[in-house]
Amino acid sequence: MKICKGAMILGQSGGPTSVINASAAGVFIEALNNENITHVYAASHGIKGILNEEIFDINQEDIKELELLKTTPSSSIGSVRYKLKDYKEDPSEYLRILEVFKKYDIRYFLYNGGNDSMDTCNKISKFFKENSYECYCIGIPKTIDNDLAFTDHTPGFASVAKYIATTIMEAKLDATVYDTPMIIIFEAMGRNAGWCAASAKLAEYKGLGADLIYVPEITFSFDKFWQDVEKKIKENNGKVIIVASEGIKIEDGRYVSELNESRGEKDSFGHAQMGGTASVLASFLRSKTKIKVRSLEPSLIQRSAAHLASKVDVIEAYEAGRFAVKLALNQETDYMVGFKRKPKEIYSIEYIKIPLEDVANAEKKLPLEWILKEESNISDDFISYCLPLIQGDMKAPLEDGLPRFAKLKKILVNGNWRLSVFIIFFSKDIETKG
Amino acid sequence: MKICKGAMILGQSGGPTSVINASAAGVFIEALNNENITHVYAASHGIKGILNEEIFDINQEDIKELELLKTTPSSSIGSVRYKLKDYKEDPSEYLRILEVFKKYDIRYFLYNGGNDSMDTCNKISKFFKENSYECYCIGIPKTIDNDLAFTDHTPGFASVAKYIATTIMEAKLDATVYDTPMIIIFEAMGRNAGWCAASAKLAEYKGLGADLIYVPEITFSFDKFWQDVEKKIKENNGKVIIVASEGIKIEDGRYVSELNESRGEKDSFGHAQMGGTASVLASFLRSKTKIKVRSLEPSLIQRSAAHLASKVDVIEAYEAGRFAVKLALNQETDYMVGFKRKPKEIYSIEYIKIPLEDVANAEKKLPLEWILKEESNISDDFISYCLPLIQGDMKAPLEDGLPRFAKLKKILVNGNWRLSVFIIFFSKDIETKG
Repeated sequence: MKICKGAMILGQSGGPTSVINASAAGVFIEALNNENITHVYAASHGIKGILNEEIFDINQEDIKELELLKTTPSSSIGSVRYKLKDYKEDPSEYLRILEVFKKYDIRYFLYNGGNDSMDTCNKISKFFKENSYECYCIGIPKTIDNDLAFTDHTPGFASVAKYIATTIMEAKLDATVYDTPMIIIFEAMGRNAGWCAASAKLAEYKGLGADLIYVPEITFSFDKFWQDVEKKIKENNGKVIIVASEGIKIEDGRYVSELNESRGEKDSFGHAQMGGTASVLASFLRSKTKIKVRSLEPSLIQRSAAHLASKVDVIEAYEAGRFAVKLALNQETDYMVGFKRKPKEIYSIEYIKIPLEDVANAEKKLPLEWILKEESNISDDFISYCLPLIQGDMKAPLEDGLPRFAKLKKILVNGNWRLSVFIIFFSKDIETKG
Repeated sequence: MKICKGAMILGQSGGPTSVINASAAGVFIEALNNENITHVYAASHGIKGILNEEIFDINQEDIKELELLKTTPSSSIGSVRYKLKDYKEDPSEYLRILEVFKKYDIRYFLYNGGNDSMDTCNKISKFFKENSYECYCIGIPKTIDNDLAFTDHTPGFASVAKYIATTIMEAKLDATVYDTPMIIIFEAMGRNAGWCAASAKLAEYKGLGADLIYVPEITFSFDKFWQDVEKKIKENNGKVIIVASEGIKIEDGRYVSELNESRGEKDSFGHAQMGGTASVLASFLRSKTKIKVRSLEPSLIQRSAAHLASKVDVIEAYEAGRFAVKLALNQETDYMVGFKRKPKEIYSIEYIKIPLEDVANAEKKLPLEWILKEESNISDDFISYCLPLIQGDMKAPLEDGLPRFAKLKKILVNGNWRLSVFIIFFSKDIETKG
């Protein structure tokens, strides 16, 4: 194998998670230590940063700050939701990407995201192959939705699962504190897959669970919902804890949240903007019962709750980043890093490669046999699956009692930073004179 | 001083916090170790438990579980919102309380709650004095609202402040991840006082703060709100983080949340049930701008987020419980434990006693001079005040990656527990035979 020397670039894409930056840390630290990688770059806002030549020079970052990325939520180099057109439809963006890659001699392209991002990575990889530009393209999985196929699970999911389970336990202690009835509806993220909502099952395992869990895999019926709630009101002295996925849909295909008339936006991939499901369910229950109903809608708080990240998740996300660099250096291309659970009693995983094309447009939902449709709950299989993933804590060091997140310099390669430095020196000079 | 030997009872009252059980731990552990306290009881659901003679025997609890109360949120012995009638209006409840206290020889009554609970404690104390029943009544402060007067701050508040500041920091990283505009509205708890909402100022101190903070101390104007938001949209490239107190009111005195027609319940003290403020503000902004607006409504998640409790708060709550026992044993009565900040550079407090009558019906709001009305923000004075309170972490040990909260036996003193034990033995017997 002929050695390929060249620069590496990482892009972050799609919705944030608690650990997407842990993968970035893995990529940066591994790449900076490899002699065949001539320079390490990061694209500002994913593919948009490449198109606009807004590229950060990672070689100029402090290693201490890169280490802090492990426990910094969201996407430090900026994310994007941007769908490339098909090459045949419009080649201009692909040609622009090639131009920028050539300019910086980028030979390794890593893209960290969910299904749509893997599709982007796949398209670029195919374009490079067809145009004989030597560049190794590897996807790094990321999504709280845990809906990427062919991988046991996805970085980011476990931390949301831990957050939801912990929060449900705390909310249950809170909501059952009075000897009066109370209904709580917690809205979990998850557009088409119920993995996040199912995490509430872990709380039940610890004796402080939800009574009812609704996931998008099952068509939602308000009649069934009211039957379920009425039954639980009787069983539990009027205290009912409900978890509903933001993506539950009624029979005609509309999201429950769409029944909330003040909403209806779509994101730039054309997905409906979720949120408001719990409010709609709460309004419905208020029309049915006089029991007090509270909806808990933490929304994006749950996906960026790095203060409650799973240590397993942080480490796996970091290692996924490192493994992606190794795959690329082995001149593999058009693959996504995946996790394969080893069939052992003590949990451990193997890092594998999955063809991007396979993963790009597939979607992994909750296994139907794990959904207890009649009880509106989740089976114990989910506990065996998920519990190993949420072990351990790993969070940012405290500074003033608050998290000390990474502070990157984010120096742009196109020269603008030189001007900034000049201005700083200039101001300092004035200050001294004054 | 003649020694008073007798039993002690603790009641928990009002809304949960992350650390109300830490105060209970302080009370129980201190009281169990004192020879003049003949027995330690806990009232199930506060004053209701006394009226109904639903009383737990704390002497039978494991000390390990009592220690775990320090890091268990909400109110383990059950809380209540119950307002005693005036004695002159209806003495029956007072006579019933006296009857129960005499039956168990209760000479020390500790009541842990907010303003309304201090009022209850004060009424009972006065009734005992007038009827020459020797019983020492001490209130232990508790409220996330931080609105108790004559004390520097209140246990429970600091942990919410830490939760809100941390969450805003994480949400800011999340919400600013795209290069597209986004408005976030976080709804903070706080009925009449803006302490909780103001905590977002701490996040600003760490460079990841809210842009606008609305507190109930200032009448809310939708016109001013839109002016503020429009200005921030221009300044911050369309990215705006807003924190609003659930208790903000418009000029005619209505809560903003009341403009949400699906609501309108009141709690049993006659307070309007809060929540929904962020939804109303989000709907309003959606009518004004095409920028995506997300409302974050963690509701009771914030007040019971023991996984993010402040260590200072946990320790102070615990010590407040211990101090209450000491005051009672010193035969002080009709006081609440309070905190006085020592005028030193390094933060420390002195535990003091405050007449219950003073504290019962007063309410401590945010100092008006700390509110930057024009900027819709909070001054740096708040940072100096609040930062020392949120230092350090202290949370429940992990078991299966999830918090191991206290599990009390909660054995009722009225004899029912004997039946339960019998049934357990009986079932076990059957099992062995089967």
